[in-house]
Amino acid sequence: MVLPPPILNVTKLENENEFIKRCQEIIGTEYVYTSVADKSAFLTDWSKRFTGNALAVLRPKNTNEVAALLALCNKENVTIVPQGGNTGLCGGATPGKDGHNVVISTTRLNQIRELDLENSTITLDAGVVLMNAQEAAAKVGKLFPLSLAAEGSCTIGGNLSTNAGGVQVLRYGNMRDLCLGIEVVTPTGEIFNGLRGLRKDNTGYSLKDLYIGAEGSLGIITAATLKLYPLPQSKVTALVAIKDVQAGIKLIDLARESSNADLTAFELISKRALRLVSKQRINSEPLSSSQTDWIVLLEFSSMDEESYNRDCLEALLENALELELISDAVIANSIQQSKDLWSIRESIPEAQFELGTVIKHDISLPISQIASFVEATEVKLHQLWPQMQTIIFGHVGDGNLHYNLAPLSPDLSDEIETRRKSINQLVHDQVYAHAGSFSAEHGIGQSKRDELPLRKSDVEIGLMRSIKKALDPKNIMNPGKVL
Amino acid sequence: MVLPPPILNVTKLENENEFIKRCQEIIGTEYVYTSVADKSAFLTDWSKRFTGNALAVLRPKNTNEVAALLALCNKENVTIVPQGGNTGLCGGATPGKDGHNVVISTTRLNQIRELDLENSTITLDAGVVLMNAQEAAAKVGKLFPLSLAAEGSCTIGGNLSTNAGGVQVLRYGNMRDLCLGIEVVTPTGEIFNGLRGLRKDNTGYSLKDLYIGAEGSLGIITAATLKLYPLPQSKVTALVAIKDVQAGIKLIDLARESSNADLTAFELISKRALRLVSKQRINSEPLSSSQTDWIVLLEFSSMDEESYNRDCLEALLENALELELISDAVIANSIQQSKDLWSIRESIPEAQFELGTVIKHDISLPISQIASFVEATEVKLHQLWPQMQTIIFGHVGDGNLHYNLAPLSPDLSDEIETRRKSINQLVHDQVYAHAGSFSAEHGIGQSKRDELPLRKSDVEIGLMRSIKKALDPKNIMNPGKVL
Repeated sequence: MVLPPPILNVTKLENENEFIKRCQEIIGTEYVYTSVADKSAFLTDWSKRFTGNALAVLRPKNTNEVAALLALCNKENVTIVPQGGNTGLCGGATPGKDGHNVVISTTRLNQIRELDLENSTITLDAGVVLMNAQEAAAKVGKLFPLSLAAEGSCTIGGNLSTNAGGVQVLRYGNMRDLCLGIEVVTPTGEIFNGLRGLRKDNTGYSLKDLYIGAEGSLGIITAATLKLYPLPQSKVTALVAIKDVQAGIKLIDLARESSNADLTAFELISKRALRLVSKQRINSEPLSSSQTDWIVLLEFSSMDEESYNRDCLEALLENALELELISDAVIANSIQQSKDLWSIRESIPEAQFELGTVIKHDISLPISQIASFVEATEVKLHQLWPQMQTIIFGHVGDGNLHYNLAPLSPDLSDEIETRRKSINQLVHDQVYAHAGSFSAEHGIGQSKRDELPLRKSDVEIGLMRSIKKALDPKNIMNPGKVL
Repeated sequence: MVLPPPILNVTKLENENEFIKRCQEIIGTEYVYTSVADKSAFLTDWSKRFTGNALAVLRPKNTNEVAALLALCNKENVTIVPQGGNTGLCGGATPGKDGHNVVISTTRLNQIRELDLENSTITLDAGVVLMNAQEAAAKVGKLFPLSLAAEGSCTIGGNLSTNAGGVQVLRYGNMRDLCLGIEVVTPTGEIFNGLRGLRKDNTGYSLKDLYIGAEGSLGIITAATLKLYPLPQSKVTALVAIKDVQAGIKLIDLARESSNADLTAFELISKRALRLVSKQRINSEPLSSSQTDWIVLLEFSSMDEESYNRDCLEALLENALELELISDAVIANSIQQSKDLWSIRESIPEAQFELGTVIKHDISLPISQIASFVEATEVKLHQLWPQMQTIIFGHVGDGNLHYNLAPLSPDLSDEIETRRKSINQLVHDQVYAHAGSFSAEHGIGQSKRDELPLRKSDVEIGLMRSIKKALDPKNIMNPGKVL
């Protein structure tokens, strides 16, 4: 028998004023937001799909203040929504509508605690913005490799809580792989200090890995010790027209095996996605006249000089041309050209706006299943509704596709909206028929919570609920999210 | 308040014969060992430090049989000790002495289920011997990189349950990093099928990471999906005399930053450890006449030709010589010479036997703390007992030292034995004073269980015990181990 979902414990505080006063004593009056104007930015998510309500938004400045707030909330049965940079895509950091909760924003926990160059680690507060962490590393000649679109606003704590991915996972792994230790405040306000800078530490259960990706449902991550890497000496970027998806998959293997430079990015772009961007960016149309339906953006990073790195890339592409995996290629000749190639990839999400309503999916598949998934799903979608087009791009080197559906004309936006549910069902059914996952890097949050028990076995859901119940028995941490 | 340790639930079965009969019905009479002779190999650990007793040793052949056995044991309150290749070093797979338990050996779960070349993954039963997994990968031109001394006997399930490390962690990570998905039988006999071949999958808590390193205390891992890598085209190996430990630490950084080839091994060897080996191996004495106290064995793997890889290594060593980090170096000129250099490192554990009683420590430290740890601990140990010598070697690139103590003469073995407790305490105190861990890669098992609560905070121990209680409420899985 599977455990039921955690109980939503919505109870109105008997004395709200007294509770707010206690919060003010803990973190200072100016950091307890109770007015609609002060709270509003924290109550709606970045994509504006989710809006909630809260008793107050609390902005503690350090771990001890977070601990005192959680102890208070635990005592008073006030539920807590942790929030970092508020850039999540599944509503995981947006409170529910009942308003009997507090949002705890970690953005004032923004200190870099320690840079240990010999250990290649950085220890920092959870509220540090990702870009600031990258810059702190670069300033001492090191690389912190996590990189994603929201890096100017998202925080390290949010990156950890959602196990963020991005464009360099292929080489450096996701946030879980980059983290050696964390500090967490538990739902009862205790501080678990697991800030270790160790590459090996087999001393009991890996609590760190449990909190990473838990989306704030087990506690609040307040600090972390992260790995740093040497800065690559050179990067070379190419845009390549591939014969078909399967040829792209073969090219990944060839790229890994034929060059010693590190394959740091391998992004698939469908022709329709490329055309969207080309319309807007007349100066960046390499390959857009090519006959292929699929493009790959690939990048090698190397500790060698650029000329050697470039020779390797050219040899790879010549080989791929001979094997008829690719039909055409553009290699960037300057940093500016490389940026131009990347901007094609990076402009796609925004370029989709002109298509009207776009139904998005963040999916992952075994790399060996991608080609058959793409082919089979295209056929089935057109059977469902012929006026649909697919916009496909993503980190195919990690098996991660952003698989998006738009109407053939923006006028059909209302019609696709009415089909959203059946489209999602079809795509996710196809994903699971191909041994994939319906959330590769964005998480579950609110938006996928109801579907999670349908996509996992009762045993797996039961195990997760047992853990939630053990570590947050009152279900005060981010209720209504994930489980 | 910290949760107490799980209760040891030693109850004698009312009807042992009936229980054994049920086991025989599930897995066949011939695979239920009840005689002393049949059981004995499973009741003593590899190092012969731990011996226990068991009602029976059970050898199921597949996941369903494991599940049926666990359901039966759960019903009858019989405790379970999971065992793989029985090569662990902390007694984690050896039963307690009471004998009211069963050993479940996984070695008959030995099928390779699937090789997915395009996805670079292998899915296999937990009882597959590590070397067989390496060979299955090599046969299709791929590398499964986990490599350690016991690889001819240890199993994938044991490697996962102890999060095994070994000599290539620096490049490829430990077993946790190499695992994409697992299949587990829970203490109630349910099967959690998490055999996914996905590089990205953010759908709730990472159960996989909880079972990895749990030493069989939460369930039995029955299968796994593991990552494969391209086989390197060339390897170059060198033995280098370094100025001191600190110079070795600087050499790690230099090696990472100055060459694009992958640094796959960086092993520190103290002069005393080298001398031990040299005495036995007259033909392998490179650098033994050098003035230094410390040697490093390093290896680069590359997808480039050997000549290029060798040029890079030579350039690195010239640079290190100019910077006065190293004083002498030997580069292997053939595969045989490379094997000879490696055999120096690999012969150390056995060569220690001539020293009499050796007290061993498997510790890890932040790399930046290694030099000061080594210096400070040496002084303190000599203050404690001047007739002691240190034998130090290990995977220093991961911060992992095998830090061993022997008497100056084997005659003093009894005397060092009487000091074992105070020596352990001193070394572990020093490890924690330098932000390290007292178990880098071997785990906790029986041998370090009592010390674990002294080395971790009450909060951390409390969290672990809560998880154990949630997932194994009757404490039937490997009781008396880890927690």
